[in-house]
Amino acid sequence: MSKYDIIVLGSGPGGYVTAIRASQLGFKTAIVEKENLGGVCLNWGCIPTKALLKSAQVFEYLKHAEDYGLSVKEYDKDFGAVVKRSRGVAEGMSKGIQFLMKKNKIDVIEGYGTLKPGKKVDVDGTEYSADHIIVATGARSRELPNLPQDGKKVIGYRQAMTLPEQPKKMIVVGSGAIGIEFAYFYNSMGTEVTVVEYLPNIVPVEDEDVSKQLERSFKKIGIKVMTSAEVTTVDTSGDGVKATVKTAKGEEVLEADIILSAVGIKTNIENIGLEDVGIAVDRDKVLVNDFYQTNVPGYYAIGDITPGQALAHVASAEGILCVEKIAGMHVEPIDYGNIPGCTYASPEIASVGLTEKQAKEKGYDLKIGKFPFSASGKASASGNKDGFVKVIFDAKYGEWLGCHMIGAGVTDMIAEAVLGRKLETTGHEVLKTIHPHPTMSEAVMEAVADAYDEVIHI
Amino acid sequence: MSKYDIIVLGSGPGGYVTAIRASQLGFKTAIVEKENLGGVCLNWGCIPTKALLKSAQVFEYLKHAEDYGLSVKEYDKDFGAVVKRSRGVAEGMSKGIQFLMKKNKIDVIEGYGTLKPGKKVDVDGTEYSADHIIVATGARSRELPNLPQDGKKVIGYRQAMTLPEQPKKMIVVGSGAIGIEFAYFYNSMGTEVTVVEYLPNIVPVEDEDVSKQLERSFKKIGIKVMTSAEVTTVDTSGDGVKATVKTAKGEEVLEADIILSAVGIKTNIENIGLEDVGIAVDRDKVLVNDFYQTNVPGYYAIGDITPGQALAHVASAEGILCVEKIAGMHVEPIDYGNIPGCTYASPEIASVGLTEKQAKEKGYDLKIGKFPFSASGKASASGNKDGFVKVIFDAKYGEWLGCHMIGAGVTDMIAEAVLGRKLETTGHEVLKTIHPHPTMSEAVMEAVADAYDEVIHI
Repeated sequence: MSKYDIIVLGSGPGGYVTAIRASQLGFKTAIVEKENLGGVCLNWGCIPTKALLKSAQVFEYLKHAEDYGLSVKEYDKDFGAVVKRSRGVAEGMSKGIQFLMKKNKIDVIEGYGTLKPGKKVDVDGTEYSADHIIVATGARSRELPNLPQDGKKVIGYRQAMTLPEQPKKMIVVGSGAIGIEFAYFYNSMGTEVTVVEYLPNIVPVEDEDVSKQLERSFKKIGIKVMTSAEVTTVDTSGDGVKATVKTAKGEEVLEADIILSAVGIKTNIENIGLEDVGIAVDRDKVLVNDFYQTNVPGYYAIGDITPGQALAHVASAEGILCVEKIAGMHVEPIDYGNIPGCTYASPEIASVGLTEKQAKEKGYDLKIGKFPFSASGKASASGNKDGFVKVIFDAKYGEWLGCHMIGAGVTDMIAEAVLGRKLETTGHEVLKTIHPHPTMSEAVMEAVADAYDEVIHI
Repeated sequence: MSKYDIIVLGSGPGGYVTAIRASQLGFKTAIVEKENLGGVCLNWGCIPTKALLKSAQVFEYLKHAEDYGLSVKEYDKDFGAVVKRSRGVAEGMSKGIQFLMKKNKIDVIEGYGTLKPGKKVDVDGTEYSADHIIVATGARSRELPNLPQDGKKVIGYRQAMTLPEQPKKMIVVGSGAIGIEFAYFYNSMGTEVTVVEYLPNIVPVEDEDVSKQLERSFKKIGIKVMTSAEVTTVDTSGDGVKATVKTAKGEEVLEADIILSAVGIKTNIENIGLEDVGIAVDRDKVLVNDFYQTNVPGYYAIGDITPGQALAHVASAEGILCVEKIAGMHVEPIDYGNIPGCTYASPEIASVGLTEKQAKEKGYDLKIGKFPFSASGKASASGNKDGFVKVIFDAKYGEWLGCHMIGAGVTDMIAEAVLGRKLETTGHEVLKTIHPHPTMSEAVMEAVADAYDEVIHI
C-alpha cells in the first residue's frame, strides 16, 4: 500500500493548490481526481465562463464599432466556435495543472476516492494511506424540487457551457454570479433571456445600489428581469419548455427552449466515506475548525464543502493555510469578512465587506461615499460610463466596512480594497494615496473623498 | 479691483483641482485660463489620447475577431471619425470642468494671466489681487535643437492628436508614455511606425524587464524599434520628411510623412511674470518647499512647473495639499517615491517605486518575484497573455521597494501596490490578502509569492 504524507481528495482550485503548497513544504503528496485536473473551476466554471464572456465582450465591440469611429459591414458569431474556444482554454489550463503536478512531484491518482478509517483512501479498489487526508471534493449545481434538471431542457451550468445549439429563448433561474454571467453571455449572442430571481433584487448578495444598477444595465441591453418571482412548475412535454412563474402580480407562463437552473450549489459530500470515518457534517457542510481539521484527527476539509464562501479563491487560501498549519508554520485564520466576490458580466461587479444594509443592521454609524463612472475621464474616454464605486466607513473609528463596485474592469480593482482593509487603512490614507490619472481606479479615491465631503469630480 | 482669497493660474489637472479644493475649504477662488478649461491633460493629453487608444483597442478586436469565435467580413476605421470621437470626449470633459467651476462658485477668468508684485495677477490688462496666488501653468512639448517642430511634418503631441490625414509612415522620436501611446495608436490604424529612442531601452524610466517586454510586443505587431539611436538631422524639403538616425552601426536615413517629436516637456514659466515678482527658478522648474510655497510669500507653484514628476495626478495632489496647508490643515508632504506611472498602449504599463537597477544601485539586498500572465487563468480566458507583474522587496526589512506591471488592464491594478506601499505592507500581508479568482490581479499576489518561493502557478 502506497503511503503519503498528504493525500488530497479532489483537484479543484482547493485541492490542486493545496497539493502544490504541500509539496513545496516537503510533504510527499498525492492527489485523487475522478475526472479532470482543475475541477469545476477550471473545467466547468470560472475559467471557461470567462472565455465565453470574452467572446461576448468582443462581439459587443463588433456591434458598437461605430461608436469608436470604426465600421463593420458584415459580422457574426459562430456559436460553436465560441464554445470551442472556451473548451480549448479549459483544456489548456487543465494541462497546465498536469504540468504543475509533475513539476511539484505530486502523484496524480485517477479514479473515485473514498475515505476509509485509519487515514486511508480507497481509489477504485486500491488503498492508499497518509498521515493527513484533505478532502476537497467541491460542489455541483443544486437542484430545486420543482425544477429538476434533465440536462436537455432544464440544465445546470455544465450543460450551459457546451450547448450543441444556441437557444433562441432562455430562462435563467437564479441571479447569483453564475446566472448573471450566463444571462449576459446568451443575451449578447442573441438569445432572448429572462432572469427569474426569487428575492427582491438580482445579485442578492450585493449592495442594493449595485443590484439596481445591474438591473438597469441589463434592461438596457434587452434582458428581461423578474424579481420576487418563483418558478412553481415546469412543463417539458412540448417542443420547448414552459415555466410557470409566480409573482406578486399573479402567475405567468414563460416559454423558452432552455431553462438554466442557477440556484446555488450542493456540496459533494455523499459517497465519499464521511460516515464510515465518522466525520461530522451539518447542513450540507463538513464541520472544521480554523485550521480545517475535522472532528477526526488526520482528516481535514477545505473549499466548497466547508462553511466559508464557496469561491475558488477561498478554497485555495484554505488549502494553503491547512497544509501550512500541518507543517507547523504560524498561520492566522482566514478573515471571512474580507473575501472579495466578483461577477464578470458587463458591467462587472466586485465587492468586499459589508453592504450598506448589513452595516446598518449591525448598528454602525456610517460614512458612505459613491463615485459614478459617468464622472470619470477614463470611463468617458473608453466609453464605459455605467456603474460606480461605493465605499462604506464606520463614522466613529474610520474602519473601511465595505467596498462595492460595478463597472468595466472592477474585478481587477477590488484587490486594492481587500488589501487596504486587511492593513486596517483609514479612509484618509486611501484618499492620500495618489492614484494614477486617468484610470478607473481613481473612482476608489474619489468615492472615499465623497464619504468625507472632499470629492473633486462630482 | 477684484479681490480673492486664492487665484489659480492655469486650469489643468493641477489648477482646476486646486480651485475646487480651495472652494471646498471656504476660500473665495478664481481661476485664470487662456485656452480651454482642463488644460493639456483634458484637452490635449491624458483624456483624448485614451479615447484614441480605445478606438485602437476595438480596431484590434475587429482584426482578431476570429480568435474569439466571431467573424468579420468587411471592416475599416474612419480616421476622421476616430479623431472626432476623441475631440468629442475632450470637449465633454472640458464642459464638465465648466460645470464643476460653477457648482463650486469659482470665478473663471478667461485670458492670459501674468503675475505682478503685491500678490496681483494681470489678465489681459485687468488686475486681480489675492491673498494667495497659485501658479499651475504646466508644460508643453519640448523641442530639440536638431528637431524643430513646424507643426506640419515635424509635430508635437497636439498635432498628433488631430492630424487631418492619417500618415502612411511615421517616425516617433522618444519613447516615453507619449511617444509609445502614439506609436501604438498609429500602428494599429495602419501607419508604418518607427520608434527612435536615444537611450538603450524604450520606456527608459521603467524596469528593464518591462522595456524588453514592450519591445518584444511592439515588434510582434510590426512597430520598428531603434534604441541607442539619435536623430541628428531632419530634412523637410521634399514631399515627406527625411531623418538621419545615428546608431552604433552608423547612420541611416529614414523617410516618413510625419515625425512626432516626443522627447519630453518644457515648462511654461516664460512670460508669466516670475522674474517681475522675483520667484526663484532653477533648471526649468519653479523652486518650492514641501507645501509648494515659492521663495516669495503668497506665491505658490504646483504641477509640471515644479520639480516633482510631471504627471496629472501629481499636479492634482500637490494642489490639494497646497490649499489644505493654506487652510491650516495638518498635511503630510507628498512621498515622491510612491507615485505611480502609466503608459496606455497595449500592453499597458504601470509601475511604482524603484526599478531593479535603481534598487541595486541603492545597495539593497533584494527579493524579486515575477509572475507572467501566460500562467494566469484569467489572462488565458481573455486572450491577454503578454506581460507580467514584477515585485521588488528589500530582503532585510521586507519593504516593498517597487512594483512593475506590463499587460492588459494593469493601469487599473497598480493602485493596490501604491496603497500597500503607503501603508508599509509586508510581502507576507499581500500574499495573505485573498485576491479574487480568476482575475489579472492575482498576478500581484503570485509575484509576491514568487519573491518568497511560495508561488503556486509557475
